[in-house]
Amino acid sequence: MREDGSIGVGVLGLGVIGSQVARVLLDQTERLAHQVGAPVVLRRAVDIDTAKLQASGLPGHLLTTDAADVVNSPEVDVVVELIGGVHPAMDLLTTALSQGKHAVTANKELMAKQGPELIELAEQNGVHLLYEASVGGGIPIIGPLKKDLLANEITSIYAIINGTTNYIVTKMSREGLDFDSALRQAQAAGFAESDPTNDIEGFDPAYKLAILASLAFHTRVRAEDVYREGISRLAPQDFQYADELGYAIKLLAIARCDDDVLSLRVHPALVPYEHLLARVDGVFNAIEIEGDLVGQVLFHGQGAGPLPTSSAVVGDTVEIARGIVSRSGSVRPGNFSREVSISPMEELTTSYYARLTVADHAGVLANITKVLGDLSISIASIIQKNADPTVRTAEIVITTHPAQERAVQEAFHQMEQIDVVKEVGSLIRVENWS
Amino acid sequence: MREDGSIGVGVLGLGVIGSQVARVLLDQTERLAHQVGAPVVLRRAVDIDTAKLQASGLPGHLLTTDAADVVNSPEVDVVVELIGGVHPAMDLLTTALSQGKHAVTANKELMAKQGPELIELAEQNGVHLLYEASVGGGIPIIGPLKKDLLANEITSIYAIINGTTNYIVTKMSREGLDFDSALRQAQAAGFAESDPTNDIEGFDPAYKLAILASLAFHTRVRAEDVYREGISRLAPQDFQYADELGYAIKLLAIARCDDDVLSLRVHPALVPYEHLLARVDGVFNAIEIEGDLVGQVLFHGQGAGPLPTSSAVVGDTVEIARGIVSRSGSVRPGNFSREVSISPMEELTTSYYARLTVADHAGVLANITKVLGDLSISIASIIQKNADPTVRTAEIVITTHPAQERAVQEAFHQMEQIDVVKEVGSLIRVENWS
Repeated sequence: MREDGSIGVGVLGLGVIGSQVARVLLDQTERLAHQVGAPVVLRRAVDIDTAKLQASGLPGHLLTTDAADVVNSPEVDVVVELIGGVHPAMDLLTTALSQGKHAVTANKELMAKQGPELIELAEQNGVHLLYEASVGGGIPIIGPLKKDLLANEITSIYAIINGTTNYIVTKMSREGLDFDSALRQAQAAGFAESDPTNDIEGFDPAYKLAILASLAFHTRVRAEDVYREGISRLAPQDFQYADELGYAIKLLAIARCDDDVLSLRVHPALVPYEHLLARVDGVFNAIEIEGDLVGQVLFHGQGAGPLPTSSAVVGDTVEIARGIVSRSGSVRPGNFSREVSISPMEELTTSYYARLTVADHAGVLANITKVLGDLSISIASIIQKNADPTVRTAEIVITTHPAQERAVQEAFHQMEQIDVVKEVGSLIRVENWS
Repeated sequence: MREDGSIGVGVLGLGVIGSQVARVLLDQTERLAHQVGAPVVLRRAVDIDTAKLQASGLPGHLLTTDAADVVNSPEVDVVVELIGGVHPAMDLLTTALSQGKHAVTANKELMAKQGPELIELAEQNGVHLLYEASVGGGIPIIGPLKKDLLANEITSIYAIINGTTNYIVTKMSREGLDFDSALRQAQAAGFAESDPTNDIEGFDPAYKLAILASLAFHTRVRAEDVYREGISRLAPQDFQYADELGYAIKLLAIARCDDDVLSLRVHPALVPYEHLLARVDGVFNAIEIEGDLVGQVLFHGQGAGPLPTSSAVVGDTVEIARGIVSRSGSVRPGNFSREVSISPMEELTTSYYARLTVADHAGVLANITKVLGDLSISIASIIQKNADPTVRTAEIVITTHPAQERAVQEAFHQMEQIDVVKEVGSLIRVENWS
């Protein structure tokens, strides 16, 4: 706190999120001061891009292109990092925390890769590092995991935490679009980047899952620990067939903890319509947490965008400011010391959906069912779909009872070698966890 | 904190919730100590009913029938009130807070009626009063409103916050039961009390809405400010007709704030299936909060029961214990000083669904539509349902465009006077807020 009793904030990065956060701090001074018990004052805002500084519309005396003006400024008590990516965000936050400044960040990549180190550094310096906005935009999820649900042993997380891919799969499902068309529409609508790899290949939700799982299971989960499969292989007819079976297809991020063994995975999944996650559409996100006491609780809202993200960032800033006003000592931050092992993906047991193109003649099913039977995979349903008489092929949809990933992968690998099987079009996991 | 560095807890009331909370405190000592940074020790548990003391299975030296042993004990730092009702809970909490003890309560009636006074008393004594379990069982909602969503101007709350009535309407909807049969099944399943008035007439959700609205709008909302209508007049065919129109029927608790004018109401409502609240079934609860930054966020989970409630109660206890360990000063509690006015129910504008029994002959619709037209109520749809040829009556379902409550009540009052209208069976509000 400054001598005048105010709390100074510096913002790093003036993209759409940073500009919105700055605007809330400037526009809502009265509301925030009332909630904190002291004025919360924006002192500096930095971006290396002078065009962004101008576009921000912020008063000129607050602006700078030199991040050192923020992280070293004696007028700044709380540094808000909204640059994204590991560099230079990591160095800037390290400097700020080392100088006894509190920090707020929305940076999922950085928190997934260096979160525990940064949190430890904050603790050593008696300051806070809050990161609510790094997962689920404005949805309160980090706070509830750190506080409200603390009495629970958390057993699982099932989440839709990437708005871009959820927009795409919702479009494919509702409008029968193929992946490329849906992606182009998402790009045109501003919901996907021109290079969409980070989203559609599941890197972004893997970062977020690593953050949530670290917090929920009190251990150190790295993004590399998360099995990852994107959505680009999904076909329009998969949505249609899944629908007929009573399922939506969603890109799920799943973390489970059984006796200190974690399974961590991001992949498309069939989700039964009875489950609320099947109803999470468009750019919305939802996170379901299961705990031994609370059972399943679900949090739903807008997972991205300047306004929702600023809700979380300013919320964290207010929380820190209130702590400064009440002169609270350092609260124990997350504990990431639990020793766990990561279960290899081959050992996963779940149900599966597969779509195959096969020769349209008698005896084909016998070939296929033999492969599955020999590997002890129990079939739940097998349905012949559209036949194409011109090339004499038919589409077959198979669903299995719970089976082991290793056996299922082997089975469909073997099937690709069978003469009558023209193609294994899709192999998608079916999640029936409720 | 005691001299030995531990934090002492006393539990008032050993019903199913109190016993469960005591059990968590006893069974999870290691987990809780780790999270708090100090042992959290159950020191006393009280109930005036000795049978409950015995049934609790707690060690005898902790038990007492005298609440003064808890609220006056120098060994108790945190008093957990799970008696319910206003008396003697109010006196006991007043004593505890006045003596500098922190408190946790799950008591919605007390918090709705005396919450702001108790919170102020806590503040005067430099202690905390937390009440996460008073609304939504284990669902984190008080915490997010007090902290995570603090940067927002909250504009509305739409909630399903009574498990008993949601169980009943779910049964009526799925199984075509009438209200009495569904209520009996709820009682048999242990989800409704033998005197169910508090739930089915909406007192319980009105208490909870008063608590949420006070916090969200920073003002003092009393349960009496909430318009209240129960579910006992709902008929099985209302669920069927609503379904045909694309709606579920739910007992909603609604609070809206427009320019310092609040509207507060608990009543059955048609909820469009596209909205997640329409999918909240059985004893589950859900609360949707809308804020200027975050947009709509929804929290879903089990709204009652010993395990979920203990998640919230122990969560609050841990939060207080962490505050004691970090020696944090008093954080500004909720602010309830905003001056607002309460909008009278007659001034509500919404859409309506009505089911009428009418004489089954030509010209009847002309009579009905004239009444609506004269009061400037615009009809969205009018559908003739089952006719009963033996008594020559038919059922008619009318839905309106948004209209004012005053005019609609007047219209259906007038209709009851028309000869050809045998009965206005149902008049239910239709909520299309998304």
